Amino acid sequence: VNLIIADSELELVPPEMAKHPQVKESAKIRGKPATEILLDSTNHFKAIFGEQRRGRPDIVHVCLLLALDSLANQQGKLKVFVHTRNDVIIEIHSSTRIPRNYNRFVGLMEQLLLVGKVPPEGTPLMTARKGTLQKLVDELGKKAVIFDENGKTKRIGELHLGDKTVIIGGFPSGDYLSKADGQKVSLGSEQLCAWSAVAYALSSLEL
Amino acid sequence: VNLIIADSELELVPPEMAKHPQVKESAKIRGKPATEILLDSTNHFKAIFGEQRRGRPDIVHVCLLLALDSLANQQGKLKVFVHTRNDVIIEIHSSTRIPRNYNRFVGLMEQLLLVGKVPPEGTPLMTARKGTLQKLVDELGKKAVIFDENGKTKRIGELHLGDKTVIIGGFPSGDYLSKADGQKVSLGSEQLCAWSAVAYALSSLEL
Repeated sequence: VNLIIADSELELVPPEMAKHPQVKESAKIRGKPATEILLDSTNHFKAIFGEQRRGRPDIVHVCLLLALDSLANQQGKLKVFVHTRNDVIIEIHSSTRIPRNYNRFVGLMEQLLLVGKVPPEGTPLMTARKGTLQKLVDELGKKAVIFDENGKTKRIGELHLGDKTVIIGGFPSGDYLSKADGQKVSLGSEQLCAWSAVAYALSSLEL
Repeated sequence: VNLIIADSELELVPPEMAKHPQVKESAKIRGKPATEILLDSTNHFKAIFGEQRRGRPDIVHVCLLLALDSLANQQGKLKVFVHTRNDVIIEIHSSTRIPRNYNRFVGLMEQLLLVGKVPPEGTPLMTARKGTLQKLVDELGKKAVIFDENGKTKRIGELHLGDKTVIIGGFPSGDYLSKADGQKVSLGSEQLCAWSAVAYALSSLEL
């Protein structure tokens, strides 16, 4: 099974927000240039104003903690990808230990988005490259099942995600920014966080 | 269904660690007395040395994000408790919005453990009181199912957690510190994090 956290709100501070006082202040505290820190709505909400969905690395963090620790991943049956709003595709080796501490996770993602791989030397555990969601789905070559609140309502036992590419939105609200071919499914709640969708999807593999 | 995250490694810095230079430094950064900040293994690993399982508020955080967002909780079918190593019982109202940002979660838990409720004024969303795990199980009056790596191996569809009290350990490794009467079950992996157990338990309610 392939799992893609898609249109994730994970990005370095974009140039147009880099000069905002709130961003400059948090970059100073971190001791890094503003365009080398992750955009984070908790610290940069004034700079993000008007685009409330942006700056949510926490969603990716919790989803990855769940996915990498899952029984499916422990058994070598899962391949995990993060696709971002800027069409960056992050590929994560199944043996990766995601930092459980959020601040360390942020530091790791900053390094990954800047350097293109972590660790920078030796065999990488995570790599980042450019690519659209549809291109990734095509590369993986399996039918896609897309979690979407407008999709057909199913119970967990009806999902049948085995041997599929599962797409879950890594954003807090609104619609997918990217288009991808696939079957849209919903778990019947309009207010489900990405991590809950990941939890239910992973569980459906273990019935 | 009642969910108890039990023997959670969530505590304020204990007096015997309060004078450790690493703890004093982090208390200074936070601008609080050392005994009023949460013990956190990421920042206090030298002070914790020899008791590696302690200082894991991150486990409680991810478990609560999952539990409060779950379909069962949205439908009013779930009651969530955190029990800690110091026999503090935290009761969480189903409408509580757990701070998604880890640092804010830590601040909230510090306030809760000091004051006994949050928010401090008005109807509390979370309360903290003294009590053992067994006492809480007795109060709730339902049969307990305890996730334990030494329990009987079951698939998710065999768990049957409806109308039970579900106990999941809020610690990273080792055994429960507390005893409680109940049926021990395992999902077959010795290396499953608490948040994965929570994810699978919550999913088993939605088959």
